Amino acid sequence: MRESLVAAAFHLFVERGYEQTTVDDIVALAGVGRRSFFRYFPSKEDVVFPDHEGCLARMTAFLGESGPAHEPVERVCDAARLVLRMYAENPAFSVQRYHLTRKVPGLRTYELSVVWRYERALAEYLRGRFSGRPDGTLRADVIAAAVVAAHNNGLRSWLRSDGRGDAGAEVDHALAHVQGVFGPQQAAGAPARSPGPDGNGADGNGARGGGKDDDVVVVVSRRGAPLWRVVQEIETTLGRDPA
Amino acid sequence: MRESLVAAAFHLFVERGYEQTTVDDIVALAGVGRRSFFRYFPSKEDVVFPDHEGCLARMTAFLGESGPAHEPVERVCDAARLVLRMYAENPAFSVQRYHLTRKVPGLRTYELSVVWRYERALAEYLRGRFSGRPDGTLRADVIAAAVVAAHNNGLRSWLRSDGRGDAGAEVDHALAHVQGVFGPQQAAGAPARSPGPDGNGADGNGARGGGKDDDVVVVVSRRGAPLWRVVQEIETTLGRDPA
Repeated sequence: MRESLVAAAFHLFVERGYEQTTVDDIVALAGVGRRSFFRYFPSKEDVVFPDHEGCLARMTAFLGESGPAHEPVERVCDAARLVLRMYAENPAFSVQRYHLTRKVPGLRTYELSVVWRYERALAEYLRGRFSGRPDGTLRADVIAAAVVAAHNNGLRSWLRSDGRGDAGAEVDHALAHVQGVFGPQQAAGAPARSPGPDGNGADGNGARGGGKDDDVVVVVSRRGAPLWRVVQEIETTLGRDPA
Repeated sequence: MRESLVAAAFHLFVERGYEQTTVDDIVALAGVGRRSFFRYFPSKEDVVFPDHEGCLARMTAFLGESGPAHEPVERVCDAARLVLRMYAENPAFSVQRYHLTRKVPGLRTYELSVVWRYERALAEYLRGRFSGRPDGTLRADVIAAAVVAAHNNGLRSWLRSDGRGDAGAEVDHALAHVQGVFGPQQAAGAPARSPGPDGNGADGNGARGGGKDDDVVVVVSRRGAPLWRVVQEIETTLGRDPA
């Protein structure tokens, strides 16, 4: 029932336009009554985004299940991937909706309010993790916004390719950028001295060399150099984007 | 006329509630006709945010006047300060609107669409400045989102203090945080190899040592080490937060 209403709605939106389609048109095509429509969707706008409420609930549950062992920035990136997964599960529908949303200002506004709710969910989680730290809420808000912007940048690239590219790879790349910038806030300080509680991947040497691998990089920097410049140099030297 | 319509509208919004106030009520109190109202405001929502269009125009003009000598991240932070100035010019009105917007979901959505337009203006400017660089649009979008989030974090702190604190100081602090994280992105790419077109501040040595300062840091890293770990090690060695 719910699926057939969504299918009927999109069929009409594409055929005659969003504004020109009424709820009556949708229920007529789906062969159900108006009350059935409003049982599932509070408004015509909601039928365009049928999965966001479920996805928000999954994101909130996912973040709620987090423990102290989860690195916070990584955790919010993984939470953002739940949104991507929803889009990637149905490429044709997602691409169709993308084009529709770009054409109808009301839908764009609706989408902004959904995105804002995702961002607030991420920020609330980070505020909890950073509570009591200097600028905790500021850092939480900034990181949440950066994660959402990166996610949406990757998602849009994929949608603009008409869903033909690799959605996961686009978003992974974008989120890796953010993780590279904000790092694991939880384990602030060098891992060797304050190892992350999860211990994944850390051999106790942190970034220091002399490990099993002879392949090393040496960066020499003036102490006064701004951090971004040092990071940039490392990225270039390692011959890869921040990952 | 415009000001008296805004004053009448807010008087009624506060007295009887936003939803319970009609455009007819507003024009009756202001002593003008409906057509006068709609000459200034497309809808009742617009009268709540009478200055955003003007502020967006000022921001666009400000960014349009930028030259290659302007450090891009600093420039978008200064552009964001134009929004703050608009709020700070009329504290009582801004605080009243803040409380109103929190109570009325439709206004919150309207505000989100305004914020989104500011963010797009900043992102478009940064995209231009970063064009042709690796991940230029991604970085532009992430920085624009971070600047807006920081600005709004500072602005909200001030609004929650009922406009009693120092709005400029709150927002300066928040924006300084973002500038610390993203640094002067203009000279992206290792400066020695691909100097920014403006050449401001770059001495051609980038992060490489051997400059005027003998105080150097050597980081040795396994090539396989994740970037955040390397960055963390550098931060710790330099004895400061990413700033």
